[in-house]
Amino acid sequence: MSIENISQAKVADGWHKQYSHHSATLNCNMRFAIFLPPNASKENPVPVLYWLSGLTCTDENFMQKANAFKAAAEQGIAIVAPDTSPRGENVPNDESYDMGQGAGFYLNATQAPWNDHYHMYDYIVTELPALIEAYFPVTAIKSISGHSMGGHGALTIGIKNSDSYRSISAFSPISNPMQCPWGQKAFSQYLGSDIESWKQYDASELMKEHSIELPILVDQGEADNFLVEQLKPEQLIEAAKVNNTDLELRMQPGYDHSYFFISTFISDHIEFHAAYLNK
Amino acid sequence: MSIENISQAKVADGWHKQYSHHSATLNCNMRFAIFLPPNASKENPVPVLYWLSGLTCTDENFMQKANAFKAAAEQGIAIVAPDTSPRGENVPNDESYDMGQGAGFYLNATQAPWNDHYHMYDYIVTELPALIEAYFPVTAIKSISGHSMGGHGALTIGIKNSDSYRSISAFSPISNPMQCPWGQKAFSQYLGSDIESWKQYDASELMKEHSIELPILVDQGEADNFLVEQLKPEQLIEAAKVNNTDLELRMQPGYDHSYFFISTFISDHIEFHAAYLNK
Repeated sequence: MSIENISQAKVADGWHKQYSHHSATLNCNMRFAIFLPPNASKENPVPVLYWLSGLTCTDENFMQKANAFKAAAEQGIAIVAPDTSPRGENVPNDESYDMGQGAGFYLNATQAPWNDHYHMYDYIVTELPALIEAYFPVTAIKSISGHSMGGHGALTIGIKNSDSYRSISAFSPISNPMQCPWGQKAFSQYLGSDIESWKQYDASELMKEHSIELPILVDQGEADNFLVEQLKPEQLIEAAKVNNTDLELRMQPGYDHSYFFISTFISDHIEFHAAYLNK
Repeated sequence: MSIENISQAKVADGWHKQYSHHSATLNCNMRFAIFLPPNASKENPVPVLYWLSGLTCTDENFMQKANAFKAAAEQGIAIVAPDTSPRGENVPNDESYDMGQGAGFYLNATQAPWNDHYHMYDYIVTELPALIEAYFPVTAIKSISGHSMGGHGALTIGIKNSDSYRSISAFSPISNPMQCPWGQKAFSQYLGSDIESWKQYDASELMKEHSIELPILVDQGEADNFLVEQLKPEQLIEAAKVNNTDLELRMQPGYDHSYFFISTFISDHIEFHAAYLNK
């Protein structure tokens, strides 16, 4: 287990750094980015917010566009942004933007040709945090957030591993992937035709199944072009009733699916997570 | 004179919009972006900060990465980000990143093949503000800022048109282009071999020549790879002594030439300009 630094830049009095490493879980080389707040040191390790990005993204979209650093620096929280899928010439791919590289859907694929590499669920839950905690001045205290496909990832991973995270948030998550075109396309290829197996990666199904105490904050733009067909946050509201899940869904008038939306409300999410990470 | 809206997104309770238009000055179609704060309306027109970007940039770099909107919304200031050169198949270009399209240097070229299109100085000083003031809920009160090549543009245009702007700022400006490789390459091709003609586009030379009352704020990262060879902010300090120019140069330890640097200090610049724009 080793990591290689490939860039670093001071920002908001802290540091943004990119690293590459060989992932045993994904069977390829991966890149990730970390923001370390100015107060992070060996003597003062800080908690971590994991950010999962959406379709077509890498580690860079959030770090360059989300405007998260000032709030994270003030709260003393590190942020880790992994890539959205395994990558490389030897990794199976698909011509469409919503399948294959850049579209890992944060699950463990069981079907060929995907099952040799596409294990983003295990990577996010196990391998990446172990790496981060080994190499950086951070504690094992963590929360998770994400956007769109990454909002789906944050919700499903957070709900299924509620002992490992302090809080969950999402922007514009794919809330019920079994019932939308993006999810149906990805799940049928990654997981096969047994629809019962899809439920383990569907936030609305998982919220009905698991009674968790984690707080969940979701922001959704009302002018989001994907809202009705792909995102379906109303299914989260219904699911939250089953186990009285601590879910707050904020519908934001006029906002779309872009990082302009995320950058507007990311400080709220940092402060939301900080209340639990720094408790 | 007409403009065509090509995108819009709500951000920080205001609006980011992109437009295209035919520029008579540049003899081609151009794209620009504008941020309108939430309080801008026909009944309440707002002042404008013009932002000039650096080499290789378009209107998008600043708008996506600079993290300027919250401060601009709070201060009630519009921001306009033009492209960095004329564009299009019929516009002369160069294979290198620091000449031709994406590298207009905010001057009026006098030499072939550049002189039919490369009139970014006139575009920024005259055509673009007229367009903005005709189509948007803004006043004629304006300030100017920019980064690197755009910092050079903001300083030179602001100094030469000090009655038209309330304040000037820059990040990592090319401060003395006559004396650095980027400037010498561009000026020799755009302006020819008469070095005397270069002085009209050199911030340090202009600062010695013009006695202006405008306040100027410059931020420069000490870890900027271009600092010594290309940027030379110490020449601004020397030039400011000649006419006792109101220049503040802040050297920022650890910061590089990137938008991570700009995003860290852009709120300071917005607040600096707001003090004069909203007076």
